[in-house]
Amino acid sequence: MSLLVRLKGFQKLATIEEAKQAFFNNLKIERKTVIVPLSEALNRVLAEDVVAEEDLPRFNRSAVDGYAVKAEDTFGASQFKPKKLKLTEGKEVKSGEAKLVWTGKPLPKGANAVLMLEHTKRASDSEIEVLAAIAPGENVSKKGEDVAKGEVAVKAGTRLKPHHLGLIAALGRSHIPVYEKPKVAILATGNELVEVGQTPKEDQIYEANRLVIASLCRELGAEPVDLGIAKDDVDEIAEKIKFGMERANVIVTTGGTSVGAPDLVPTAINSLGKPGVIVHGIAMRPAMPTALAVIDNKPIIVLSGNSVAAMFGFEVFARPLILKMLGAEHESRPVVKARLTRRTTTALGRRTFVRVRVFQRNGEFYAEPISARGSGIISTMTKANGYVVVLENREGLEEGETVLVHLFDIMEVAGENV
Amino acid sequence: MSLLVRLKGFQKLATIEEAKQAFFNNLKIERKTVIVPLSEALNRVLAEDVVAEEDLPRFNRSAVDGYAVKAEDTFGASQFKPKKLKLTEGKEVKSGEAKLVWTGKPLPKGANAVLMLEHTKRASDSEIEVLAAIAPGENVSKKGEDVAKGEVAVKAGTRLKPHHLGLIAALGRSHIPVYEKPKVAILATGNELVEVGQTPKEDQIYEANRLVIASLCRELGAEPVDLGIAKDDVDEIAEKIKFGMERANVIVTTGGTSVGAPDLVPTAINSLGKPGVIVHGIAMRPAMPTALAVIDNKPIIVLSGNSVAAMFGFEVFARPLILKMLGAEHESRPVVKARLTRRTTTALGRRTFVRVRVFQRNGEFYAEPISARGSGIISTMTKANGYVVVLENREGLEEGETVLVHLFDIMEVAGENV
Repeated sequence: MSLLVRLKGFQKLATIEEAKQAFFNNLKIERKTVIVPLSEALNRVLAEDVVAEEDLPRFNRSAVDGYAVKAEDTFGASQFKPKKLKLTEGKEVKSGEAKLVWTGKPLPKGANAVLMLEHTKRASDSEIEVLAAIAPGENVSKKGEDVAKGEVAVKAGTRLKPHHLGLIAALGRSHIPVYEKPKVAILATGNELVEVGQTPKEDQIYEANRLVIASLCRELGAEPVDLGIAKDDVDEIAEKIKFGMERANVIVTTGGTSVGAPDLVPTAINSLGKPGVIVHGIAMRPAMPTALAVIDNKPIIVLSGNSVAAMFGFEVFARPLILKMLGAEHESRPVVKARLTRRTTTALGRRTFVRVRVFQRNGEFYAEPISARGSGIISTMTKANGYVVVLENREGLEEGETVLVHLFDIMEVAGENV
Repeated sequence: MSLLVRLKGFQKLATIEEAKQAFFNNLKIERKTVIVPLSEALNRVLAEDVVAEEDLPRFNRSAVDGYAVKAEDTFGASQFKPKKLKLTEGKEVKSGEAKLVWTGKPLPKGANAVLMLEHTKRASDSEIEVLAAIAPGENVSKKGEDVAKGEVAVKAGTRLKPHHLGLIAALGRSHIPVYEKPKVAILATGNELVEVGQTPKEDQIYEANRLVIASLCRELGAEPVDLGIAKDDVDEIAEKIKFGMERANVIVTTGGTSVGAPDLVPTAINSLGKPGVIVHGIAMRPAMPTALAVIDNKPIIVLSGNSVAAMFGFEVFARPLILKMLGAEHESRPVVKARLTRRTTTALGRRTFVRVRVFQRNGEFYAEPISARGSGIISTMTKANGYVVVLENREGLEEGETVLVHLFDIMEVAGENV
């Protein structure tokens, strides 16, 4: 193959929307449900509504520490005109009686309200003085007040956080249906790559993309499957992708997809089945050489070998795919409005992802663009804590302009925030 | 023991600051470091600076697909006045020569810049036309440009996110020191409690607090240890706390600490050693009956049995303790400024944590207070997505007032945000 033949550009770059549409049109996403114990459900996505099988609370209960009484017995009582009630330890509170109850305990039979300790005085070992009048129902958590029987307590599609788990546990459910974690097989390609921990030759670099992508998958709730590193060899790449297709729901590759370089990964994919590569070359920066493919309803996302481009390709295409597979497509990154600290230029006709560092000063958010040449400078991703999307019809952003920042890491911003 | 003797209030409520100060003054926090493989370091906290042992990139490399050249050879070239260069496949680029390079590959010897493919035209199999002049260094990622040898790449105390791991991997480090995960032993107390999955008697309720606290611990990066449920019995409680002290760095209990109810948990703790209970009763709402204890330098946090009070007690006292043990005390919840949709009243002299639901309308954030009677209504925590802190000197917040909301769950807010 002569150099000339191998030199190609992309005929026409697809917009991100065109690319996504073509990709998802070729995919039928089927979600599987698994039943897990509640103790293993943190951050999983609920697959079916959790409906209360009984009232919560299960009985009328005291909302305070105090005395269960018939409210009518307190009418007219005040600090200046206390009324006396007789203490009982019986099962039922009768007229003229009061029974000590602690917060959360069942309201005794016969009682319809609870007098707070603070509104009583011990008159003797067997009597209390009532210093305030209360209405029926006061300081009582009514049966079903939290969640009524038959009510939806937590909706399908909810990412389960500690308080959701607490509510489901309080309803007595020990196991719940969640969506299966999609498995994502990850392959790096390139003769120049060496595993971290090994000794590189002079012109080799450490392979870092698989770890980044595996970590991004874990953060979303997907399960990474490592396919290792393939040499720049179509057959080896095809074999490893095939291996991944048998074991995972999604394949993600890095490298072998440059604008000018030989199309190793797309060629390998097209040798494996139909429809193959659907889009190659996206009107975005970074991550322009990204390709999207489908074989036998299995999605393959072909990312650049450049770390930063790989991260943004993942962000724009793999993240929404994985969230859809997880039943959580409504989730997005946290955003914050900020003022740009200085002008930044972008290329017309490319949707540009500008890395920024958000910080707070005098109660206002500012976004400082992180300068970077090329898309290989990975430290720009650790200096940045978010990104701004510049649309195709703009040539940049002005100093002082208000921008919407998508945050990588909410903690870091919050840290400067308090 | 007569009822009268057992009835006590708190002599004086401590402010949150007083409580924290007394608690931490009695504690000496020692962090242990463990070495972990990078693949297991996601969300761990880095214990030592990661310093670059060599330059990143390891060599000058091309930032684009194009031709490595001597920049001087392009001077004066333009679309209207192209210059010709001879293609070489040799190791070195000499004057008048150009060599094809792909993004990320080493810059060949002799070259000092890279011409983008777009700024060239193939003249023949052995020659290209240069359509633009470039300066020395253009489209080259310089050796050490990303991180220079000896530079701190990632600082100690950093919560490791995918992009941090990527940078550390790119530097060739396979193992890193992180702080050990604190172990948190969790005990629920109360005769009324039954395990989720079992059949409760008429006056029993499902025990949900342990799962909530274990999940909150996991979210922070701590490791929960389950101590089960203890009956309302001082000896049983003491025995289980002792068991936890031998296995964990922190003990968290729920229940047995009401304002009026017998002080079962504090009594059990004081039987185990010194100094014992340091603070009991905090000027806050909910979570007023929270107690803080230390025995032999082991912290014990005694939470209310009410789910919501337990969560806020954990938020205010256990969370900062665990973050401190993790070396991540600078982390806080994400916050957002919002306008209160309606008036809410709070108690003078108590720091009040008002649960709110933040939503966005016409680009502005609003916070809707979630009404709740008592602190047992756990569904208020799933309806809310954050809380507002009302200081002790206020009796409430006004409608339309701008408040700072601490967010439980950034995803949910972001979802309504886009």
